[in-house]
Parts: sequence; C-alpha cells; structure tokens
Amino acid sequence: MALVKENMHITLKQAWTLLREAITQIAPELCSVQHCYERLLAADLLSQRNVPHYNASAMDGFALSSASTAHATPSSPVFLRRDEFARLNTGGVLPASFDAVAMIEDVALSSDGEKLTVAKTLVAGENVRPVGEDVFRGQVIARVGERISPPLASLCATAGIPSVSVQALPKTLFIPTGDEIIPLEEWLSMDEPPAGKVGESNSFLVQGYFSRWGFPVDIAPCLPDNPEVLSEFLLKKAEEYDLLLVGAGSAKGEKDYTFSIFEKYGKPIFRWLLMKPGRPASAALLRRAVAVNLPGFPMSNAVILWSIVYPILQLLQKGDFDESSAIQEALGAEGSEEMSLLVSCSSSPGKEEWLRLKCVEIDGRKMAYPLPSGASALWSLAEIDAVSLLPLESAELPKGSAVSVWTTRRIPWKERILFQGSNDPALERLPSFVRKQGGDLLLRSVGSLAGLAALSRRECHIAAAHLFHAETGEYNTPFIDELFHDPETVVRRRVFFREQGFITKKGNPKKISGVRDLDREDIVLVNRQRGAGTRVLLDALLEEADIHPSAVRGYNSLSPTHFESANRVALGFVDVALGIKSVADALDLDFIPVAEEPYELVYLKEFESLTGLKAVLNALDDKEWRAGVLRMGGYRWAE
Amino acid sequence: MALVKENMHITLKQAWTLLREAITQIAPELCSVQHCYERLLAADLLSQRNVPHYNASAMDGFALSSASTAHATPSSPVFLRRDEFARLNTGGVLPASFDAVAMIEDVALSSDGEKLTVAKTLVAGENVRPVGEDVFRGQVIARVGERISPPLASLCATAGIPSVSVQALPKTLFIPTGDEIIPLEEWLSMDEPPAGKVGESNSFLVQGYFSRWGFPVDIAPCLPDNPEVLSEFLLKKAEEYDLLLVGAGSAKGEKDYTFSIFEKYGKPIFRWLLMKPGRPASAALLRRAVAVNLPGFPMSNAVILWSIVYPILQLLQKGDFDESSAIQEALGAEGSEEMSLLVSCSSSPGKEEWLRLKCVEIDGRKMAYPLPSGASALWSLAEIDAVSLLPLESAELPKGSAVSVWTTRRIPWKERILFQGSNDPALERLPSFVRKQGGDLLLRSVGSLAGLAALSRRECHIAAAHLFHAETGEYNTPFIDELFHDPETVVRRRVFFREQGFITKKGNPKKISGVRDLDREDIVLVNRQRGAGTRVLLDALLEEADIHPSAVRGYNSLSPTHFESANRVALGFVDVALGIKSVADALDLDFIPVAEEPYELVYLKEFESLTGLKAVLNALDDKEWRAGVLRMGGYRWAE
Repeated sequence: MALVKENMHITLKQAWTLLREAITQIAPELCSVQHCYERLLAADLLSQRNVPHYNASAMDGFALSSASTAHATPSSPVFLRRDEFARLNTGGVLPASFDAVAMIEDVALSSDGEKLTVAKTLVAGENVRPVGEDVFRGQVIARVGERISPPLASLCATAGIPSVSVQALPKTLFIPTGDEIIPLEEWLSMDEPPAGKVGESNSFLVQGYFSRWGFPVDIAPCLPDNPEVLSEFLLKKAEEYDLLLVGAGSAKGEKDYTFSIFEKYGKPIFRWLLMKPGRPASAALLRRAVAVNLPGFPMSNAVILWSIVYPILQLLQKGDFDESSAIQEALGAEGSEEMSLLVSCSSSPGKEEWLRLKCVEIDGRKMAYPLPSGASALWSLAEIDAVSLLPLESAELPKGSAVSVWTTRRIPWKERILFQGSNDPALERLPSFVRKQGGDLLLRSVGSLAGLAALSRRECHIAAAHLFHAETGEYNTPFIDELFHDPETVVRRRVFFREQGFITKKGNPKKISGVRDLDREDIVLVNRQRGAGTRVLLDALLEEADIHPSAVRGYNSLSPTHFESANRVALGFVDVALGIKSVADALDLDFIPVAEEPYELVYLKEFESLTGLKAVLNALDDKEWRAGVLRMGGYRWAE
Repeated sequence: MALVKENMHITLKQAWTLLREAITQIAPELCSVQHCYERLLAADLLSQRNVPHYNASAMDGFALSSASTAHATPSSPVFLRRDEFARLNTGGVLPASFDAVAMIEDVALSSDGEKLTVAKTLVAGENVRPVGEDVFRGQVIARVGERISPPLASLCATAGIPSVSVQALPKTLFIPTGDEIIPLEEWLSMDEPPAGKVGESNSFLVQGYFSRWGFPVDIAPCLPDNPEVLSEFLLKKAEEYDLLLVGAGSAKGEKDYTFSIFEKYGKPIFRWLLMKPGRPASAALLRRAVAVNLPGFPMSNAVILWSIVYPILQLLQKGDFDESSAIQEALGAEGSEEMSLLVSCSSSPGKEEWLRLKCVEIDGRKMAYPLPSGASALWSLAEIDAVSLLPLESAELPKGSAVSVWTTRRIPWKERILFQGSNDPALERLPSFVRKQGGDLLLRSVGSLAGLAALSRRECHIAAAHLFHAETGEYNTPFIDELFHDPETVVRRRVFFREQGFITKKGNPKKISGVRDLDREDIVLVNRQRGAGTRVLLDALLEEADIHPSAVRGYNSLSPTHFESANRVALGFVDVALGIKSVADALDLDFIPVAEEPYELVYLKEFESLTGLKAVLNALDDKEWRAGVLRMGGYRWAE
C-alpha cells in the first residue's frame, strides 16, 4: 500500500498523531504477584482478604474484657483472675472472650501469675488491630493505570492476591541489517577489523534503552542487504512480535529495501521526518505488528528510539502516551530546564534539530554548549549531559539564547570547572586526576586566544595559552594586558614547557627541513584555527621567513587539535603540520623542533575559592599524572 | 563485642557516620560489555580501536585525489579518467590513492561511466571520516565513577572493548525470621489463613526496592525464632554475602535474638534509632559481611530500607554516598519540594518522624495531608504520593506548616480533586469511574460538617453532607448558610437518598428496637466523630427520646466510617451503631431503619471549570457505577 504524500516529510508531532491513529493497545495479561513489580494495573485491584485476618494485639500486653475494667484507675484498680486475662505478644491472637489489650505499663501481674491488677479503664477494641483494620476483603487497594510499587506488591501478597491483571509488555524484535555489519561477538574478537566493515553495535543502544524503560527486546541475527531474505524474515516475525525494529546498516547508501517491503506488504504510517538527525525513519503496520525502520548512524538511531519507538511502546502498552513528557521519560531525563547557550549554534530551519550538550554553571548561571555533532559520532552521544530538540523554526541561535534542555545525567554543578583554551594532550589526561580530588574538569579546545577571551567574558573558569608576541618576544602577557581590564584579577600558572616543531611522515619523505620549505609546490600543510597559539607561532615563523600565507598550500585547511592535525599527516592527507612533539611521538611521526614554549594556565583570582578549581590545582601536583606527562615526550616541568 | 552506649538511640545522621566509618568498598569486578548497562566504572575506559578504523566516505559520492581538482569550478570543471575516481557509498572504504570524496551534486558521470566531470575544488580529507575521527585508540572515552549509559555501552562495543572494570554490586541475602511467618507461596494458596500467622511479605518490599535500585538480592527460607538456628545460619552466610538483612517477624515481641548474635559474634555498629517508625533497627559487621536487623512491620521495614540499607549498598559499591540525596534516590523520588500541611500533625519531639502523605493542589498551592499512620499499616504505604521525614525537633505542626516532601509518584495535579466530607461506601467506588473520565478523585472522610467547613476555607474542591437540622427539619441548608458568606457561590447536587438505621448483630440478640433501647445497661454503642451527619442524626434522635448522651454506654467511642463502626458490631466489640443499610448488608448484620436521608455533594461554582471536577460530575452519570450502587442496597436515586 502506497503512502499518501501528506505522511512523508512530516514533523514529529504529525508522526505522533499518525501513530496514535494507527496503533491499538495490546490485550492485558495476568502476572503473578512475584513478578509484578513496576507493571501497570489493567484493572482495579480488590483485596481477597481482610488484613489483618484476625483480631491481633497491637502491642505486647494482656488481653482482657473491657467491661471488666470499668471504673479502674491507678487509685482504684481492678483485679482479674487467671481466666480473665491472657498474655499476648504483638500480633498475637485476641481470644474470642476478650475485646481489648492492656499495655504492660497499665497492669501488674502477681508473682504466681494468677492475678492481674489493672489500673486503667479500657474501651472495647483498645490496643487491638481488628480484622480488616488495614484493608477489608473486597476493598479497592489500587486502581487501573497505577504502577505496582514495592509496597503495593507487598500489600497484594498480604491481601492474598496471587496474580494481577496488568498491561502487557509489547514483544519487540530488533533486526540488524547490512552487508557491512559484523556480529558483535565476532567484532570484539578481531585484532584488526577489515576496512569497510563495522561492528553491530546499535543493538546495544536498543537493548540499553529497552532495559532502562522496562521493556523486553530480542535481537535477531544480522541480515544481509537482500530484499527477499529481509521480507520473508519480516513477514514471519510480524506474526510473533508486536514491534519490529529494522536497523539499517550505517553505510546503506541507496539500498534501502525496508520501506519498499513496508509498502508492498503492510500499511505505511509515515516516511521521513523533518528532523536532524533522524530523517530516514519510517513506520508501518505489518501483519499484526508495528514495524519501524531505524537509521543506521548511532545518533540517528538514538533520536528515533527516544522520539518514535518509546511513544510506540507506550501506545502498545497503555493505548496512549503523554506528548509533553514522552521524550523526557525516554531519555531518562531528570527534568527539563532553560539554559543559556555558551556559543552560537546554527540550526537548519524547517527541521527540528537535536543538540548534544555539555553543561556548566558560571556565576550562578547554567549554560550549555554543543558537542561536535554529526549523526555518525558516537562519542559525543555517550559524553553528553543534556539534549535539546530545537523547534522547526530555529535558524541561527546567537550566543546567550535560552534553550530548553533535558539533562540526561546528574551534573556536578558545584564541582564542575570549564576550561577553554589551548589544546594539549597532557592536559587531556588531567580530568581523571581532578575527579580524584573531588572536582570535575571539562575541556574545550578553542585555541589560546579564544580561551583568554572567553575567560575575560566569564565564559569559562580557566584558560590556557602559549601565545607568542613577536614584537616583544614575550609569551601571553601582552594578550592578557589587552583582554583584561585589570590583569591583577588574573592568576597565571606556568605548568610546563613543551616542544613545538614540524611534524612529517615517518622518514620525512619530502625532506622538509623547516619553515623555508612551506611554500614548495609539492608540500601541503594543515593549519590550526585562528587564535590557536600554534598558528600564532606559525605566522611569526612565516613572517620571519618572509613567506606570504597565500603561498602555502593548505594554509586555510584547519584542524582543532594537535592530534587531529598530526593524524592528517599520518593518514597522508597532508605533508606537514606544526605541532607538539608528544603527538608526533604518539603517532610515530618525524619531528623537526622549532621552539620550546611555556604552557600557562590562567584563571580569575576570585574563582580560587571554587571546589572544582581547587581540585584542578591539586591535580596538577599529582605524581601519577606528572609521571605520565613526562613519558609522553617533549615536556619539561616549569619549576 | 558489646556496643558502646553512644551508639545506641542515635539519630540517622549519627548512624550514617558510624556506617561510613565501619564499611569499606568491595573490590571492583570485570563485566562483559554485553551486561554492563547502568554499572559504574571502576576505572577510566580507554578505546582499544580507532573509530572509524579506516578512512570512510561520509556520504554517497566519488572518491578522488583532491590535487586533481585544483582550480575546478562550475564554469571550468576538471575531467577525470576511469582510474582517477571510484564510486563510494556512505561508509565505503576510501582507496589509498585518493584523499577526498566529491558529493554527487558536484559531479557528473558520463553515460559510459568512463569520465567524471568535477565542478568543485576539494581539499584533502573533504567528505571523509578519517581514521579515529570519532575516537582515537587509547583515548579516554569515559571516566571512573560514570554510569554506563546505553550510548556508552554501544561505544565500548564499537571501540573494541569486550569487558569493563566496574564497581561490584554487593551480594545481599534477606532472611525472614519468626515462628508466626508463613512462606509466601503457602500463604497465597490458603483459603483461610490461621489466626496468629502472617504471610511473609516483607521480602517483596526488599526485592522490589532492590530491583528498582539495580542491586541483586537473594531470599533465604523463613527461619524460626531459635537463636541457635539463626546464629549458625547467619555465620555461614556471612562468609558468602556482603550484606545480610535479617527480617524480624511482625509479632516478635521480646524475642529479638538477632542483636544478641551481632554482639556475640560480630562488631555492632548501632542499635535503635531516634526515628518513628524504624526505631528497632540495628547493624553490625559480622565476619566479612554487614548485617542489618530490619523491623518486622512493613512501614518500619520500608523506612530502614530507604534510610539505612540503601546507604549501606552505596558504601559497599562506591565507598561513599551522598547524604543530601540518598533518601530521595532510595525512594525513587522525582524531587523534593515544600508543601503546606492541610491538617495539623503531631510529631514526637526527640524522634525523626516519617509522614505518609497524599498531595493536592488547590488555588495553585500544593498541599499535603498524612494518611493513617501506624507502622503496621501497609495500605497507606502503598497509597502514598509523598513522604516526609520530620526533623528531630518537630513537635506539633499546625495546619499550614511548610514541610519538605519527596514525591514518590507522578501526581496528576491538574486532574486531581480533593473530596472532604461525609463517608459513604457508594462514593468510595466512584474514583475508578472518575479516572475513566480523565480525573483523579481523592476521598477524605471527615464527616459532613467538617467537609463543608473545609470547603468554605477552600481546603478541598468538593464536600458531601447529610446534616439534619432538627429545628427546621431541613437538611444541609442552615449549615451552608452559616458557613458560606454567599451561598450563591456554592453548587449543591443531590446524588441519592440512603437509609439510616441501627445496625446490630445478625439476629439482633439484644433485641434492640430503636433509640429507646440505647440507655439500657447491657447495650454498648459505637458513635461517629463530632460533625458527622450520622452523629447529628443520633443526637437528634436521643434529644427526641429525651435520653442524655451520658446515659449511653460507648457514646464517646468513635469510628471514622460507616464500615468501621459496623465492623465493630460484627466483631462483637459493641452491640449497636447508627449507620447506613448498605454497610449492614455488606457485613451481613441486622438493620432497624430510622430515616431516609438525602446525600448531597457540594462544591464551589468557580471550581466547575476544573478538569477533575468535570470528570467527577460525569462519573456520577456512569451507568456501571449507578448499577453497582443499587446492588449495594439502601440507596435510591434522587431524580
């Protein structure tokens, strides 16, 4: 069945409406009380017993007849014979001839146990937990739709309810597909996976979220990109499962057979969302199941799990879902709040766009900045603190814009310190040592100058710079004097010296000897971004050598970190990069030394009282970190 | 080893300090990546692979050498021969001789496939996901202490990490004890459980919370109250488990052997808490395990699970816990907030006291009122919306006091309607039907007069009354005129008429014929609370019969509901109660009719726009509810 045009390229809200219309709740099921935790009641729950089921003593004391204590007071007690009272422990059975329990404090038992002196008048039922006090037989103890909490499960057991009618959990099958996919067990056992193949890891994302949501999911074997095999498998499984998730390979290219199968054998619900990432998703009814085509890239896969699959599970289980809270629940978000963007973000108008965010609090204001995006990046998805879904109409969002975010983990606001500044691989090892000191250090590599500027605008707690000032021959000082109204408010801490130089392929095949080779026709450079200390150094070197930047091939191609630019050399994309020795060593590249430069941390004096900043400063003295830095090569301590 | 006196009768905070000193973290363990969801990392996690592990095309296009596209523009394109390009799908392998991928939009392929026209100059690496773009081999991808989210598990798999070092989950054994305990399977299979025995249901509470917290727990068979058996078992299990929870029977009385065993064989940590309920808890080190004595009553058991056992699990797993959030986490509370008490509460000074609360929002103000307490009541524990732990110094808390509460379930604030007023069993069946209409009705039986007064003070949304005014012979009107400044603001809806009468034991053994028998020496009554419509009626009847209340035995013993007072008759505690026919029928008691009275709902006109109130009014027309009411007996519809 072909899809009507209106159901292609639609918004999430439109997709939700279509799903709501297409999907009906599955039938409830009986669940034994032993396994009913966290399930949702499909009917009111009636007690099968009185609780307690007998008249029980509410305390340790003596059962007696209240009538026999009429007018008893401490000054005129009554005396009871052996057959007029009985010793009871808490929970003990009140004998039928008695109707009250006297507390031990209100009575005295004779030494031979034959006589009880009672100094208080009791009323019928006193200190007795009568039959049904807690719950009557037939009483409604919980109502349809409620979640079975541990106390409710315990009450069910006590109330003699052996099984409860609950909303059934949909049965789901995830089916990874793609010729390039290697099953996970095999992938993990490989020493060197072949090029062009990828490990089947999306099932991990699916299993992880399903387990978090409390839904079961089975994982099918990987299927090849073969429409016959796929359709036969899907049609068979559509009879066994309530929900089929077809996972596309990450490199499927034009070979998307899944939707054709939906059209041929099923009833399509929608295709393509106005969403980035996540666009290639589609859904259909197939036999008695709901089927969803999940995009292959991890981030695309994740957003469809949150925004489409979770609502479908709710519809199957409960017949409805709450549009205002569905994504928040799916994310396991602790809440939703407004934060201010630390940097400007551009969004594609006409598409809802997902941002992956890190968060920090500075001067009492909560701020967020996006991690590198791209649907294929898994690291930034694993690293996020929060997620935002920018509305359809968002375009350029200037710095300081308020965005509504869902926080996906507990953020250590008070311990967290944001670093913006010069990239350095030794510093990248510091956060684990800061954590040992009770702090939490976020690193954002923006280059030396941008870091100092951010600090001057109070957009980070700490910066780092190695900015060479050619006119004075000084490092950093002229830049700090320029940026900060009062340089006295700034604390500078020189951490180490590091060797800068030209990084070339192993063996230096193009015989590069220094800056004077950079304008050669056969040499391509990769540069760093404007304001990076390394670029400032390169410019000074070029100036000194009287080479104009336009004469250097690759001058305008940029890398944000030492590692990435050195990696481009290692991969053969370029011939040379200016960078530090530790990175050349790590990637086994040649290194032609140019300068030894000081690397300085800079922060505002007033931030010294912050827990997190203290932890950073302490971590700088950590022996294990320092030993590791020396082993990296090209570093010398400043002291 | 005997416990020092300072560690007896201590506050929760003191207990936490002692636990922190006594308990050390257990050793971390390796966990396969397939089972690592939600575990906490015990060490930094380093990538074992580059991701991607080959240079991959970032899109569908043509691989080529960027150098060959120098100066290409749409107006002066370059032409490449068959061996100078290669077709690639997204994720495809970039051949070693090429360094960029041209997008399909920027090229044209000749019909014979031999020539590619390129209209754009590419830079090296363009549209390529280079080796290690997402993650480098050796890069820290997550740090010690972090929880393994689904994306992180997926990243581990992709990065070739087959197992991860995680903080170990403590092994826990729950040991139910007590001669009066019946194992649950047996309990559930019984038609009529014997008096004096109770079902072992605390293990349900323990299992439910442990599963919610993500910790495993084993349940031992029930042990008898025998110190030799118990000590032998505990000492054996203390070698196998990290944590032993000894569950006391609910009716243990003086037979608490557990702590003696702790003292004889272990190192006691504390005994008795200044907490209500929860006082009888104790803890010790026993062999290599931590052992906790859990009180038997459900609520006492629950509070010790939240406030002692959860922190111990954290200490064993992580070596620490956050005192400010531990109880909130243990409760699974969504947050903590201040609410205003709807009624006054008395607390025992010198003890921290737990309140079980229901919550409602009226006029934009969130308010809470306690459910019947008592450590033995399981229903109110299952029914709560929120919990509060009143501090040590709290004594009498007047109505309106602000208390800090943890909400333990999502509260439907906007749909929720609070009823205060006359108790009626037919009305008690209404909330399920209100829920069908999208509302949520809380019932609080306080009596007719107290309900109207609460409504006049805007402390509920809806009230119900059947107040007979002897002077005028009218129902309700004189009371409403007195309480409400402008009776026009009030809407009255007569729901049904119900029969009131004297309820006696089956067969009326004391031959009670009416009010004139109530001053007989051999007759004991149970009364209703002041302001209850039924009591107002009784007083009118006594006045008419010229009987002074002091002549009626039991006039001052009170029951809050029709069901409870009729139950006292059924149990033989009293001879007679005034009440409605449906309750006499339900409990198979005799009924001597006295009057048919109108039962009226009363609400403020301005509340009519509330979603919840609309749902209540709609539910009153529900055919199923109405049919059920008629079957109860003693009701007649008002129309």
